[in-house]
Amino acid sequence: MNFASDNAGGVHPRIMAALAAANDGHVPAYGGDRITRAAQDLLREVFDAPDAAVHFVPTGTAANALSLSLLAPGWGKVFCHQDAHIQTSETGAPEFFTGGAKLITVPGTGGKITPEALTEALILNGRDSVHAGQNVALSLTNATEWGTVYDVEEIAALTAIAHAQGMACHMDGARFANALASLDVAPSDLTWRAGIDILSLGGTKNGCMGVEAVLIFDPALSDEFEFRRKRGGALVSKHRFLAAQVLAWLEGDLWLQMARHANAMAHELALGLSRLPGVRINQRVETNAVFATVPREVYSRARATGMSFHLWPHTQDEAGDEPLSIRLVCGWDTRLEDVTGALAALA
Amino acid sequence: MNFASDNAGGVHPRIMAALAAANDGHVPAYGGDRITRAAQDLLREVFDAPDAAVHFVPTGTAANALSLSLLAPGWGKVFCHQDAHIQTSETGAPEFFTGGAKLITVPGTGGKITPEALTEALILNGRDSVHAGQNVALSLTNATEWGTVYDVEEIAALTAIAHAQGMACHMDGARFANALASLDVAPSDLTWRAGIDILSLGGTKNGCMGVEAVLIFDPALSDEFEFRRKRGGALVSKHRFLAAQVLAWLEGDLWLQMARHANAMAHELALGLSRLPGVRINQRVETNAVFATVPREVYSRARATGMSFHLWPHTQDEAGDEPLSIRLVCGWDTRLEDVTGALAALA
Amino acid sequence: MNFASDNAGGVHPRIMAALAAANDGHVPAYGGDRITRAAQDLLREVFDAPDAAVHFVPTGTAANALSLSLLAPGWGKVFCHQDAHIQTSETGAPEFFTGGAKLITVPGTGGKITPEALTEALILNGRDSVHAGQNVALSLTNATEWGTVYDVEEIAALTAIAHAQGMACHMDGARFANALASLDVAPSDLTWRAGIDILSLGGTKNGCMGVEAVLIFDPALSDEFEFRRKRGGALVSKHRFLAAQVLAWLEGDLWLQMARHANAMAHELALGLSRLPGVRINQRVETNAVFATVPREVYSRARATGMSFHLWPHTQDEAGDEPLSIRLVCGWDTRLEDVTGALAALA
Amino acid sequence: MNFASDNAGGVHPRIMAALAAANDGHVPAYGGDRITRAAQDLLREVFDAPDAAVHFVPTGTAANALSLSLLAPGWGKVFCHQDAHIQTSETGAPEFFTGGAKLITVPGTGGKITPEALTEALILNGRDSVHAGQNVALSLTNATEWGTVYDVEEIAALTAIAHAQGMACHMDGARFANALASLDVAPSDLTWRAGIDILSLGGTKNGCMGVEAVLIFDPALSDEFEFRRKRGGALVSKHRFLAAQVLAWLEGDLWLQMARHANAMAHELALGLSRLPGVRINQRVETNAVFATVPREVYSRARATGMSFHLWPHTQDEAGDEPLSIRLVCGWDTRLEDVTGALAALA
Repeated sequence: MNFASDNAGGVHPRIMAALAAANDGHVPAYGGDRITRAAQDLLREVFDAPDAAVHFVPTGTAANALSLSLLAPGWGKVFCHQDAHIQTSETGAPEFFTGGAKLITVPGTGGKITPEALTEALILNGRDSVHAGQNVALSLTNATEWGTVYDVEEIAALTAIAHAQGMACHMDGARFANALASLDVAPSDLTWRAGIDILSLGGTKNGCMGVEAVLIFDPALSDEFEFRRKRGGALVSKHRFLAAQVLAWLEGDLWLQMARHANAMAHELALGLSRLPGVRINQRVETNAVFATVPREVYSRARATGMSFHLWPHTQDEAGDEPLSIRLVCGWDTRLEDVTGALAALA
Repeated sequence: MNFASDNAGGVHPRIMAALAAANDGHVPAYGGDRITRAAQDLLREVFDAPDAAVHFVPTGTAANALSLSLLAPGWGKVFCHQDAHIQTSETGAPEFFTGGAKLITVPGTGGKITPEALTEALILNGRDSVHAGQNVALSLTNATEWGTVYDVEEIAALTAIAHAQGMACHMDGARFANALASLDVAPSDLTWRAGIDILSLGGTKNGCMGVEAVLIFDPALSDEFEFRRKRGGALVSKHRFLAAQVLAWLEGDLWLQMARHANAMAHELALGLSRLPGVRINQRVETNAVFATVPREVYSRARATGMSFHLWPHTQDEAGDEPLSIRLVCGWDTRLEDVTGALAALA
Repeated sequence: MNFASDNAGGVHPRIMAALAAANDGHVPAYGGDRITRAAQDLLREVFDAPDAAVHFVPTGTAANALSLSLLAPGWGKVFCHQDAHIQTSETGAPEFFTGGAKLITVPGTGGKITPEALTEALILNGRDSVHAGQNVALSLTNATEWGTVYDVEEIAALTAIAHAQGMACHMDGARFANALASLDVAPSDLTWRAGIDILSLGGTKNGCMGVEAVLIFDPALSDEFEFRRKRGGALVSKHRFLAAQVLAWLEGDLWLQMARHANAMAHELALGLSRLPGVRINQRVETNAVFATVPREVYSRARATGMSFHLWPHTQDEAGDEPLSIRLVCGWDTRLEDVTGALAALA
Repeated sequence: MNFASDNAGGVHPRIMAALAAANDGHVPAYGGDRITRAAQDLLREVFDAPDAAVHFVPTGTAANALSLSLLAPGWGKVFCHQDAHIQTSETGAPEFFTGGAKLITVPGTGGKITPEALTEALILNGRDSVHAGQNVALSLTNATEWGTVYDVEEIAALTAIAHAQGMACHMDGARFANALASLDVAPSDLTWRAGIDILSLGGTKNGCMGVEAVLIFDPALSDEFEFRRKRGGALVSKHRFLAAQVLAWLEGDLWLQMARHANAMAHELALGLSRLPGVRINQRVETNAVFATVPREVYSRARATGMSFHLWPHTQDEAGDEPLSIRLVCGWDTRLEDVTGALAALA
């Protein structure tokens, strides 16, 4: 019973089969092959964005950092939630790839930035100046690091504020499929129609082996992306094996099926947990993660059964008697019996 | 009547004379000259630090960013006050020179970090990890951006926390002389004896034409500094003209005299302002800056007389009826009649 | 018939099977899994280097650039052949990851640096100085970009020169298996016993889907590598799928079998080509690439048959009547009938 | 008798007087003052470039590296002479400020690039590609590191080649005044009218205390320069003291008078040296440096008299019997008796 991360899961069999099928003969390297073109075309179709540039990279950190490097020069400021993955979990990759841009963190409950909080942060950061730098970009994570989602209107409200200041908008969509499945809206509505300029679209956490797509809705930035990807060490040579994953992931809406399943498992898990005495669900479960505060004995029992999960925040003291806050993540391959088994073990 | 910044002031006549005197014949460039050696030696003596490496650079931003680059790799985190100059006013220079380190801002009144706030920030940032990066340095500004000072005990308490975590300690001493004059302690007590590893020591704001010294109390880092300074474009060729300023600045305690004078003028100004109806002094005046909130008519009268000063924070709205918060900075060359004249005009 | 690159080839069936087998249940992400540990251990065993740190990355450019970043600060100089991949084909990745190090190119026939040429380059670059920077590393490619190999003595002679100057030694082993198969020596003899400090070991060009190993023979540098890999966007989350490739690649000496086959095919191809009228083999074929100058009609016939290969150098003029120089690369999956078919078509 | 470098010299008395005169009262910092505006305007007038952006920095390395950073992204290639200061003597500053651009060195006698050599280098570097990077800029030094000059036609021929490839053109004018004095042409003819896009104009080596101007003939790049200058630590706060130097330097053509004098002294010195038995002048003396090969006994005598000068190249072996090649640089303050004294001592 592994609820540590959707990264701990495996690869969907249809994607594994697509990899095997792609392993046929010689094809041009570095994305010049037909599978890559097909995957790019399919993403453009799925996002109703015929002019978008589409590129593939092997990690989410590369996707985010390269995307931001198109929007932020070294003297730029990128506004993001204080718990954003780009701030807390990428070891300075955004700063590295942008050549020194500064992430300005915005507080907010549930991992979400409100228009008020963004406006306040912009006021605090003042006008662009040679001393203070430039406010250049907003980065939103959807689904958020707390498993919540921004809906279309929320995204649009935030991007409107950013665009009014001349800033561009990035979305970290490491769990975009989970957000989409949760909201049941069109991919385009949740991205470019709502003002998103670049999307890092995660496949790895949602059943792929290792591929993230970057959708650049303003294709003028595409050439620069390609140079940056190569010199960033993120241009995969046998590119068909990235693209084949993406094709299988999208075909027949597999990505949404997997995301829906993961979300449903998390709902189930939260429902069960909420019935346990002393357990508090800390965050409305909108996608595939459950954040709960549990009594010490429940925590210890969970560890004793070998369940994998993380303290959230990481910085809590495992020694002691206080209740602990934990994160449980479900994936495309979490089975209902994993959930019921976990609940039984904890009860 | 210019209270905009101590950067707006001129050069002390004795320093100007030293520049003229240094302009004699040919000497080795890039710091190989005798004036440079003398200035380095004198600083080592003044700071009672016979082994310290001493280097000169032309700007405070270079001094800070180069100093931090010795302490923080690109995946490092540097803790500083949320109003620290390195965070608000150097356009990402620390990020640039370190190759992407992240500044973690700590809140605190009066521009000062408390041990509690530092400890909390360290807990929030958790242990070093490949995902979160490394907590590597603490940077303290003394005197602070709000004109307050950390005393010896305060510095020691903060550096002890940092050192206990394996972090190094930098001091941004753009206005170090003002702090020293305010506290009346030995330079060594306020720096390396209190746990500071590197000091950026500002001359420019305190009567020099343009020179900052970097004192590296652990001289093992000195060679790297020299490479970084050169490739950072901050190695001045006719080096004697940096060093000559430093020599004259230190000789006969001129630096402290100038700092004491500037501090005294600020006290005078604050005293007078505090007697004006509706004026509130926002920050105990400990060095050479006065932060006050003034009624709109006082503000307008000040502007009308041609007085120079800044809104503080910059982001206040100049239109409107509300009282405004302003910063008034005195320098070595602020005359008592400037202060009394200003007060008279505003009364 | 594709002789464009060993990147154009597919994945060996045993490696593909290993990927499928690794796709079993949940395991820790980011390299905390057992498959990763097994692959690291096996590499340490194969290289007879029990203390070496072993890490995996998704691309050869990441492997090289990250490796160099451990050896070269931004003011360092890295000596490499003028045709080295790090100089000609990585778009400045080494400069990016090192923070600005300079590649000093050394000329030499057959893609190889001689001791004399290295010594001359070192003399020309003089002593370390604040103006000139530091000579910090030597990077050798083996097999070279021209398909030749350095033998053990050649490596040892070059690394001895470098080490005598305090420089460290990196090997770009994108085609290390081909070199090893050609020389029939132990991996350790061709690397750390010959003075190599860090090896980028390529799997992708030799039958893997996409994985490169970095062997750091001085494990003190390992922690820094991990930070650099993460902030460089090269830490793959579902790490078992990198490691599984490596395990299968090494098991039963599959890597050497594949390399031997590719080398043998290149020899066969060269032999046949050398018998064609007007064709000149430009480089002794020591591994899996053939460099030949062919009459224009042979060139046109090859293109007409749909054979894939590159002009080498790329900068030749395809229009005109002159003979053209081309590169033909064989891979683990080049069949003898591909070679004989190609030769028949060109005859 | 100091012929080590024009950096070893002092400041012209009129420039020192201008510094003293500028030291009057409070003025806005960071270039907002009237002296800065006057110096910018005067440079625009002298260069007949009413729209040019003009900025001041404290070092030549900052001027060059910041200028190149406007023209070259991290994946760009900058073509320069193999002996260019940016390649040999700035410790990777161009790579640092550009974020990793690669300097492609072009050989050529007398420190000069010929159209043929540039064309060959461009062919060798081929077309832009994601693997090879982009050819983005040409950097010419005038006067060159070997004291020679490019005339207007030579500059125009080289910039035409570069512009035809979509590349921009930078001039390192650390000794631009010496070139101008040598050629007796208009500043505009030797720069923007001949195709130069950005000029680093050196004051320091030619009688200033420490100031370099950057003239950006396409003012669209000016804003970015200002951000880059600040975060590069090269924005001097008491800016009037940079500008005052420039004003005095230009007024009454002082810069050209000083350069003419330095050039004349070098001619005199070369003439005298050429008459000494066994001495060979290695480079036609076109500006203020003399490159000569001298018998060992002449060399030893020169060292014995305390004359300062450099071996050129630095890497020659001072032990031994062979003749040695040296560089002797004259400055604005080299006196005729220094020259005759030196010649007498060596005879």
